[in-house]
Amino acid sequence: MHVEPKPVSTGNPTFVEAPRCERLEDLEADVAVIGIPYKSPYEVSVPLEALDPAPSALSAPDALRRQSATYAHSLRHYDFDFGGDLFAGRDVRIVDCGNLDLESKSHEEQLEVIARAIRLILGKGAVPIILGGDHGTPSPILRGYEDHGPLCVVQIDAHLDYRDERHGFKHGFSSQMRRAAEMPWVGSMMQIGLRGVGSGRLEEYEAARARGSVMVRAQELHQLGVERILERLPEAPKYYITIDSDGLDPSIAPGVYYPSPGGVNYFEMTDLVKGIAGRGAIAGIDFCEVVPALDVRDLTSIFASRLILNFIGAMAHSGQIDRASASK
Amino acid sequence: MHVEPKPVSTGNPTFVEAPRCERLEDLEADVAVIGIPYKSPYEVSVPLEALDPAPSALSAPDALRRQSATYAHSLRHYDFDFGGDLFAGRDVRIVDCGNLDLESKSHEEQLEVIARAIRLILGKGAVPIILGGDHGTPSPILRGYEDHGPLCVVQIDAHLDYRDERHGFKHGFSSQMRRAAEMPWVGSMMQIGLRGVGSGRLEEYEAARARGSVMVRAQELHQLGVERILERLPEAPKYYITIDSDGLDPSIAPGVYYPSPGGVNYFEMTDLVKGIAGRGAIAGIDFCEVVPALDVRDLTSIFASRLILNFIGAMAHSGQIDRASASK
Amino acid sequence: MHVEPKPVSTGNPTFVEAPRCERLEDLEADVAVIGIPYKSPYEVSVPLEALDPAPSALSAPDALRRQSATYAHSLRHYDFDFGGDLFAGRDVRIVDCGNLDLESKSHEEQLEVIARAIRLILGKGAVPIILGGDHGTPSPILRGYEDHGPLCVVQIDAHLDYRDERHGFKHGFSSQMRRAAEMPWVGSMMQIGLRGVGSGRLEEYEAARARGSVMVRAQELHQLGVERILERLPEAPKYYITIDSDGLDPSIAPGVYYPSPGGVNYFEMTDLVKGIAGRGAIAGIDFCEVVPALDVRDLTSIFASRLILNFIGAMAHSGQIDRASASK
Amino acid sequence: MHVEPKPVSTGNPTFVEAPRCERLEDLEADVAVIGIPYKSPYEVSVPLEALDPAPSALSAPDALRRQSATYAHSLRHYDFDFGGDLFAGRDVRIVDCGNLDLESKSHEEQLEVIARAIRLILGKGAVPIILGGDHGTPSPILRGYEDHGPLCVVQIDAHLDYRDERHGFKHGFSSQMRRAAEMPWVGSMMQIGLRGVGSGRLEEYEAARARGSVMVRAQELHQLGVERILERLPEAPKYYITIDSDGLDPSIAPGVYYPSPGGVNYFEMTDLVKGIAGRGAIAGIDFCEVVPALDVRDLTSIFASRLILNFIGAMAHSGQIDRASASK
Amino acid sequence: MHVEPKPVSTGNPTFVEAPRCERLEDLEADVAVIGIPYKSPYEVSVPLEALDPAPSALSAPDALRRQSATYAHSLRHYDFDFGGDLFAGRDVRIVDCGNLDLESKSHEEQLEVIARAIRLILGKGAVPIILGGDHGTPSPILRGYEDHGPLCVVQIDAHLDYRDERHGFKHGFSSQMRRAAEMPWVGSMMQIGLRGVGSGRLEEYEAARARGSVMVRAQELHQLGVERILERLPEAPKYYITIDSDGLDPSIAPGVYYPSPGGVNYFEMTDLVKGIAGRGAIAGIDFCEVVPALDVRDLTSIFASRLILNFIGAMAHSGQIDRASASK
Amino acid sequence: MHVEPKPVSTGNPTFVEAPRCERLEDLEADVAVIGIPYKSPYEVSVPLEALDPAPSALSAPDALRRQSATYAHSLRHYDFDFGGDLFAGRDVRIVDCGNLDLESKSHEEQLEVIARAIRLILGKGAVPIILGGDHGTPSPILRGYEDHGPLCVVQIDAHLDYRDERHGFKHGFSSQMRRAAEMPWVGSMMQIGLRGVGSGRLEEYEAARARGSVMVRAQELHQLGVERILERLPEAPKYYITIDSDGLDPSIAPGVYYPSPGGVNYFEMTDLVKGIAGRGAIAGIDFCEVVPALDVRDLTSIFASRLILNFIGAMAHSGQIDRASASK
Repeated sequence: MHVEPKPVSTGNPTFVEAPRCERLEDLEADVAVIGIPYKSPYEVSVPLEALDPAPSALSAPDALRRQSATYAHSLRHYDFDFGGDLFAGRDVRIVDCGNLDLESKSHEEQLEVIARAIRLILGKGAVPIILGGDHGTPSPILRGYEDHGPLCVVQIDAHLDYRDERHGFKHGFSSQMRRAAEMPWVGSMMQIGLRGVGSGRLEEYEAARARGSVMVRAQELHQLGVERILERLPEAPKYYITIDSDGLDPSIAPGVYYPSPGGVNYFEMTDLVKGIAGRGAIAGIDFCEVVPALDVRDLTSIFASRLILNFIGAMAHSGQIDRASASK
Repeated sequence: MHVEPKPVSTGNPTFVEAPRCERLEDLEADVAVIGIPYKSPYEVSVPLEALDPAPSALSAPDALRRQSATYAHSLRHYDFDFGGDLFAGRDVRIVDCGNLDLESKSHEEQLEVIARAIRLILGKGAVPIILGGDHGTPSPILRGYEDHGPLCVVQIDAHLDYRDERHGFKHGFSSQMRRAAEMPWVGSMMQIGLRGVGSGRLEEYEAARARGSVMVRAQELHQLGVERILERLPEAPKYYITIDSDGLDPSIAPGVYYPSPGGVNYFEMTDLVKGIAGRGAIAGIDFCEVVPALDVRDLTSIFASRLILNFIGAMAHSGQIDRASASK
Repeated sequence: MHVEPKPVSTGNPTFVEAPRCERLEDLEADVAVIGIPYKSPYEVSVPLEALDPAPSALSAPDALRRQSATYAHSLRHYDFDFGGDLFAGRDVRIVDCGNLDLESKSHEEQLEVIARAIRLILGKGAVPIILGGDHGTPSPILRGYEDHGPLCVVQIDAHLDYRDERHGFKHGFSSQMRRAAEMPWVGSMMQIGLRGVGSGRLEEYEAARARGSVMVRAQELHQLGVERILERLPEAPKYYITIDSDGLDPSIAPGVYYPSPGGVNYFEMTDLVKGIAGRGAIAGIDFCEVVPALDVRDLTSIFASRLILNFIGAMAHSGQIDRASASK
Repeated sequence: MHVEPKPVSTGNPTFVEAPRCERLEDLEADVAVIGIPYKSPYEVSVPLEALDPAPSALSAPDALRRQSATYAHSLRHYDFDFGGDLFAGRDVRIVDCGNLDLESKSHEEQLEVIARAIRLILGKGAVPIILGGDHGTPSPILRGYEDHGPLCVVQIDAHLDYRDERHGFKHGFSSQMRRAAEMPWVGSMMQIGLRGVGSGRLEEYEAARARGSVMVRAQELHQLGVERILERLPEAPKYYITIDSDGLDPSIAPGVYYPSPGGVNYFEMTDLVKGIAGRGAIAGIDFCEVVPALDVRDLTSIFASRLILNFIGAMAHSGQIDRASASK
Repeated sequence: MHVEPKPVSTGNPTFVEAPRCERLEDLEADVAVIGIPYKSPYEVSVPLEALDPAPSALSAPDALRRQSATYAHSLRHYDFDFGGDLFAGRDVRIVDCGNLDLESKSHEEQLEVIARAIRLILGKGAVPIILGGDHGTPSPILRGYEDHGPLCVVQIDAHLDYRDERHGFKHGFSSQMRRAAEMPWVGSMMQIGLRGVGSGRLEEYEAARARGSVMVRAQELHQLGVERILERLPEAPKYYITIDSDGLDPSIAPGVYYPSPGGVNYFEMTDLVKGIAGRGAIAGIDFCEVVPALDVRDLTSIFASRLILNFIGAMAHSGQIDRASASK
Repeated sequence: MHVEPKPVSTGNPTFVEAPRCERLEDLEADVAVIGIPYKSPYEVSVPLEALDPAPSALSAPDALRRQSATYAHSLRHYDFDFGGDLFAGRDVRIVDCGNLDLESKSHEEQLEVIARAIRLILGKGAVPIILGGDHGTPSPILRGYEDHGPLCVVQIDAHLDYRDERHGFKHGFSSQMRRAAEMPWVGSMMQIGLRGVGSGRLEEYEAARARGSVMVRAQELHQLGVERILERLPEAPKYYITIDSDGLDPSIAPGVYYPSPGGVNYFEMTDLVKGIAGRGAIAGIDFCEVVPALDVRDLTSIFASRLILNFIGAMAHSGQIDRASASK
């Protein structure tokens, strides 16, 4: 099976105009950006399916790259959210590995291709930052961490995503947190931003609770603040962060399948990741379920690419990336 | 005069795919959803009137129904905003009564048709949830409550709507709260979300104050929180809640004639209704002045249909609807 | 050189339907609204430059005027944000001076035309309210204040705008605060709303700090509140306020080149100006970098025109404009 | 019953900026432009009814007026389609009578109001040019010609419109030609542009043929040319021309409910009316079923307003309007 | 391998609301409509690939079905293009077989699935009418005719589509006519509508000519007329007609990848198929490369569904479908 | 004064991906494509001026370049409109000289800059193909031909453009043909496509006729055909062709200020230029008044870029460009 991600197509820029990696075997990077345009094999709900063509997250990786160009020439500027250089004066090698080619593969093959690509990146010592498809993407990604645990998985999401299966499929965007919880190398889990009538039933809620998932409602987060919420973060040597864009507030992320008011805002999101990076290593991050065709004035893609830069900044400021910058 | 609401037109779903009621005489429901596409007989202001066709709330009931489909299959899921089943394990019978046919009637006839439809629904013991036209709709609705008082009317709105008349008409969206206050069965009134240069003059403000209206500015609500604001709620056996969508913050309700920043947010709105339901029965709710042609990515319709579900949930959790659920 | 601003073009309304001033020599007003469609002579960044036509702030003055019509007939209504008449019962003479004709002039000529127009307005005793082009506009505006200092310049912006030059040009939207700081009649400076990876480098940050600029991060503003931030306001007899729309939160100002989540919200903005007006005279205000082609449902123009009314209200309530209203 | 058409609303221009007539009693004109926003009381077919709001011809009169502004200042220019002055050097008094107010009336009332307005205009000696709603409009219009026959009615349409009734209603856009044929003062009829699977069945075709209707297929018109088709025109002292925009080719009239390729083109349409004007007086013209919400770049409204000018030109060149022009 | 086409998805109507066929084994029909959303495995050219999501013909079958609803209730009306009943009084059994599910298959599998579905339909004695994907679709379709030749293939297209391979693939939209010509059961070929700078080089033109393809330029068709062009039609017992929508004039088919002015118009297209049906049996028809995301006001889908009805009409009028109509 | 055109901006492709010319002094080409984004200094008429931003032709050169990419890789393919290689087997050196920088110059300077750039190109022996701004562009272009006459200017336009001045300006899009006729090196003139109520009055028509202009109405062209119209072409050694896009039919060129139905179609346009090229040398061509913001699905830009290729092809087939192709 062919697992090599193809480079970003000619017409598109790379993420913040980072250098391209043509073959994962040759990867040398601190942070490896990779697009994984995965689509769970079930339909989105009415009324979205009446749109033509049906909106999807398949084009999200390239949409985020396109908008990230805004920041390409100011990466080393003074950043007020970090009180100085975004990368803390470090030399952060960001490389864009292009998109995994999943188009002509069965779903079982897709899951395997994704896991192998992640394994390759981790084998090269880089932290993967995944520009995701829908929020089924983390399930095969986390398969690739088998030799890189134990992990605490922190999810930002309006929904629990803890269904055992849906329409007979066990790896879609309603089930991936349950799959993650079943992996021996996933030691603990925190789920932040929960609100509203979600995709799960009482049994799924109880299943998550039974496995020790730390669940944080969006309203709690607003009321208590990031610092107090982080006190509940399970201790772990490494954290994997997975973001369903609908965990964010629709005023910063309208381009999602199921916008839910009352979500995580910009400073909460940034402070959460800063706080996690201060408590352990960031093993990887995915940003999923941006749906460009449902976006408003590209805001979701703009803000997602900005948040990803903040995440990289958090890794630099925590000392996880610590190569002295030549350009400083 | 023909007062029978017609069923929802064929091409449209019902609200959360609820069963239809073809004739109000046959209604059996806890909650009766009914569309009342009322339009006050005066023009909206420049620059809106330059749009072609002029935007209106006439199509709002069907727009809300269409977006409510998102939630149709997750009504009994675990809801994080309620800490369990949205309907508290009750069997809530929601029925969709379609839209009142107002198109070929004079305004005086329309007012009468609306009042009679509400009387019919109340006579059947159901709580009306009105998918409104513009915010002139509550005036004839409240006429229908003559035998169902005394009521405290709680209004969520950026504006006072207390003009005695406008362009010679006394029941439009600038006057309906004054009309309500004149009805003997309306015992008290609370107006929440007020802000900005509104439609009323000093005399209207003083008229409202003279009648004992409890006015709450949006900024007060944000600063003091829902709990402290609810301490000012007049005591009453029954509460009627009327929502002008521009009372909400434009980030969750951009699809209105007069968007006003700084409005009521999602959790405030939900907690307000929960709080009211905890203090007395909910006699009815209307959600008015959603203007689909001015909406952004359908957000207003999506969030409005979600809030309506929360209102029904509040009635179930307060015990107002208390039939044990068969499906539980 | 011809410096006379031309009146608003026939097809467009004036700001809140105020009377027009055909020649600045004849101006009699408390508040002189003037459009200055200035464009810095460098390109916006990728991906915006791929749009056709490239979005710009050139049409912003007329867009704001068009949306201000919403408020034209309710200026003397009861205003909940001011607890009474917006203009405090004063007779505020607002006059619309049209737009400066910059189209056929070189940039050096444009800078001179702008400064002279401002001088003319100030000479007539009116407070200029500038409907700006991009945020390079304040640089020539402030030149016109040479005989009207000392000023404290308060900037609302996500960015520092303190570059010495860019692409060889010293008066564009990346440099105007540095230019302002160099003017002898600008005695102090406060910069509010700073956040994210901005346009400046460490050296620019330090240059601003060295000159005593009081910098306030957006997150600080949210956490501490307006009152405590205003304690840091430099004392001055007069304040000039310059607003880059991207200083505001994108949920109220999406129509900007570089939307940055986490910005100043509606009540913060209003309270800031009220607070400043309470501490000294408002010498002038500009509202820049509204980009109509990037706006969402005209929200930025609607809210900008509303905020401008609030600013005028603040001047009336502080007593700066104190002519007793005939219409009261 | 109130039959007075209201003047064009403030925000809108009149047709080619012609003077307004505030009351029909005061009309002095050669050509009286009047908007009749009539809507047949049945729904358009799927898939149009899924659009929100449902597209209609209600705003067509004002859309045509708005686009006619393009021609307002060149009416007396050299016209290549007429080989000289469009109005043949005559002084043509065009007056815009505004729109009939049908909004708050029952359909039976609407039919009566329309007929009476036409009678008033004809009584003043002016030729009515109706900016129509849907193509049910001619039925009540022709009622108003009772004392102004005999007429030959010439219809430009893709469809026969000869149904006896539809959904129980006898005056909608599927029936109006049958209604016309029943009026004693309609002596003959020609139907041009017929094509495709139309709204009529065999029986309706045979009913039209039995009454002597001269039917011309669109393809015949293209193959034989206007001159030869006009040989079939029934002789009559006066001709009334009714246009369903879908009779025109969709490349010039895409903004219709049922676009049908292969329709009448610009020069055919112009030459048809020139030819008819050369054979008898033009008693009136209606231009119906322009649907602005379905239009493409306003082309239908632009071209419709241009064709109407050509029709007036045809009347001037034929000598029907023969007042010597003062401006010549 | 699973070859069963899935039924049309719930939210969508069938073609002209025809009955559905759930399993091809159970098909009983004269005309079997089937959607084949095939996509050639190469990218469309710049500037289309910059669009997000990239436009494609994948949603074309459902777009055509949706627009065909316009005609669903007038199929037996008097048709002016046929001078009577569209189906000549015959009882034409149209059945909609849904869409082939190609999504999770490799291209080689897709080609096989398509051929087998066509074989099944032909085995049931029905004429397939294929709602295509891009214009690579005919290649696998024609494979399915192995036992149903000899065929003359008539192509309507701006381009020759005679490349031996492109990007290593031999069955894409640049090669399918060459593939067809290689099939022993394709005896002759006519290519109509050719114009402009096409996809083929001189060698491909000469290869087509060498195999006896009858090539007709669009301009020839306009100048000589359909009748004289049909004199060049190769004699054959059966004709298969394949339509690339860009063969049609962009004024009736703007929704294509490569719009080319000067194409085949509505009456030419209709008369061509009528003429062919008069000379031999219609063995099948495909309508490909409608690209809904590039369409203008759905015109391409509307007109395509109408033309398909005309094609069925041509088969009925030629006597190919001759079951006496019960409904007559 | 700086007359050097700047190269196409980085983000944009060149015309058919031709090589760039960075300095006109270094130009070596048969055909020099150059963008001249000129805008006449008067407003377009109502209702266009109400659009925001006002549509213009300023971005037309880059819009045409972007769409020309469609043809970049098929230039040497078999072309059915030419019966072989588009360039007749010649080696045509097309070079893209970028856009003239007119933005910061007065109109008088702009006129001079344009004339000098054309003189430079002509001095290098290349044929200029101008991607124009509005149709005032030819006036300064033709100034540059002073030493390259005598010319016959052939205009394709709906309008005569023969006003002596408008709003005091003598070189705008209403006057440029009169300016051309005054140049001693313009010996004769033909104006094709005239129709409708144009911009000129009787006196302008007579002025054009008095100077011997050969005027051809659009309808004449359709009725007589290109061959017979070309019999009226003035004899001349060199022809300059100027195209106002509104001369073309709106079905192929909707993106213009003043769409006029009944215009020149694709084959007429192509055959006209072929015919002219057969009678004398083509001295230059401009394609003006494409207004991208008014375009429909980019059709005008697509077809304009295609027609320009046909024009180059006509020059190659006539033998005007006769360098043997190396690639043949």
